[in-house]
Amino acid sequence: MSANETVQGATGTGAGQIPRYEGKAKVVTVLGTNEVEVYFKDDATAFNGLKKTSFDGKGYFNARISAKFFRYLEKNGIPTHYLGDIDDRTHKARLVKIVPIEVVVRNIATGSLVKRIGMPEGKILDPALVEYYLKDDKLGDPIILPEHAFLLGLCDAKRLDEIRAMAVKVNGLLRTVCAKINLKLVDFKLEFGITNDGQLILADEVSPDTCRFWDSETNQKLDKDRFRLDLGDVMGAYREVLKRLDAELK
Amino acid sequence: MSANETVQGATGTGAGQIPRYEGKAKVVTVLGTNEVEVYFKDDATAFNGLKKTSFDGKGYFNARISAKFFRYLEKNGIPTHYLGDIDDRTHKARLVKIVPIEVVVRNIATGSLVKRIGMPEGKILDPALVEYYLKDDKLGDPIILPEHAFLLGLCDAKRLDEIRAMAVKVNGLLRTVCAKINLKLVDFKLEFGITNDGQLILADEVSPDTCRFWDSETNQKLDKDRFRLDLGDVMGAYREVLKRLDAELK
Repeated sequence: MSANETVQGATGTGAGQIPRYEGKAKVVTVLGTNEVEVYFKDDATAFNGLKKTSFDGKGYFNARISAKFFRYLEKNGIPTHYLGDIDDRTHKARLVKIVPIEVVVRNIATGSLVKRIGMPEGKILDPALVEYYLKDDKLGDPIILPEHAFLLGLCDAKRLDEIRAMAVKVNGLLRTVCAKINLKLVDFKLEFGITNDGQLILADEVSPDTCRFWDSETNQKLDKDRFRLDLGDVMGAYREVLKRLDAELK
Repeated sequence: MSANETVQGATGTGAGQIPRYEGKAKVVTVLGTNEVEVYFKDDATAFNGLKKTSFDGKGYFNARISAKFFRYLEKNGIPTHYLGDIDDRTHKARLVKIVPIEVVVRNIATGSLVKRIGMPEGKILDPALVEYYLKDDKLGDPIILPEHAFLLGLCDAKRLDEIRAMAVKVNGLLRTVCAKINLKLVDFKLEFGITNDGQLILADEVSPDTCRFWDSETNQKLDKDRFRLDLGDVMGAYREVLKRLDAELK
């Protein structure tokens, strides 16, 4: 799901209405020609919406964790959509047109990579593996090749190169901070957007909903896999990630 | 399925037994250190084996059509495993180790490309789209990226470049002959093998089981889609392809 796909995804765009897009985990409301409000819900979904529930505080944890990561990335040269906090679970962000490609960066093989093509669980992927998925819930977000993206008109080769380079840079930066707080950054999903003036920026969120974090010593899962795999204490894991981040990123 | 995956797929390799591999549509028997016999069965399967039947004469048509294509490709600079005919439905072929990648070349969008990622049916793909699938029935032959192939140890980048270049050249040659006999070459699947001395050659088969052929004027399907989609007169279509090829490739 995307934080910010106002242009295509907006509802209620009639005269006098505020364009609003509600996704699986966030609600995006357009504030003006260049800004949106991104509200983080407590709803949780997995397996393309087949598994659903709600966790008290998830929206809060994800908004706080994403804000910290976005500020850190921005300071280190990654342009992001994040502009600031409206409240504890709401970001102010730049309005973008979302590129309908989910970019997945993997440092350790797990999840769909193991299930789909039989990669050995836990295999270290160095350099990191970058995959692209078509952002389309009806089709189940299928994996695509760069050539598919071009043929579907999702973006051109120059833009995809830019996206890939930014994703790899984000991986390096996130790994650095994760290492300092005893987390392995196993893999994560990014979404990118194009601003009104054509700039590529990082959008959506960076949180335990979109990243896999494993404790560096115990390999305990501290992310949405606790929900996917029924491991229990889901919010305890999100709280722990926020606590460690708070200590590192003031 | 593969014509020729003796080394890993062979059964009955005990003392005194003849190594033999039976796949969904062919049986490969090792004849010596460098040769195999490839017998084309009448069995037909689709949707990863979920749909099964048998058509009288299918093995004959596929053996004849493949032999014609292999001879034509060989004459035009593509090294193939085909050495000659043992009988009407049996090829003699070079023993190879199959590269476990199914290479799909597409000139017109149809089939899984439409279903999986929503490509518009009938879209012309120019240049042709080359896709790689992991040859693994248990996993349902999933699509893979080149990076997946390297990480799984299926082949290295240099070998994949060689495979891709050969597949593109095969496409050009097959399109030329198809155009002469009023067939559109919609897409096809190739398998490659490595000989004992490390040479990459085309293996498996080139037939209405592995290619989609549409009549140039009517767009009538003259391939295994007649079975997949229950269009009837499956063998009539295979016979028609062979008849047209007979007239062109003596």
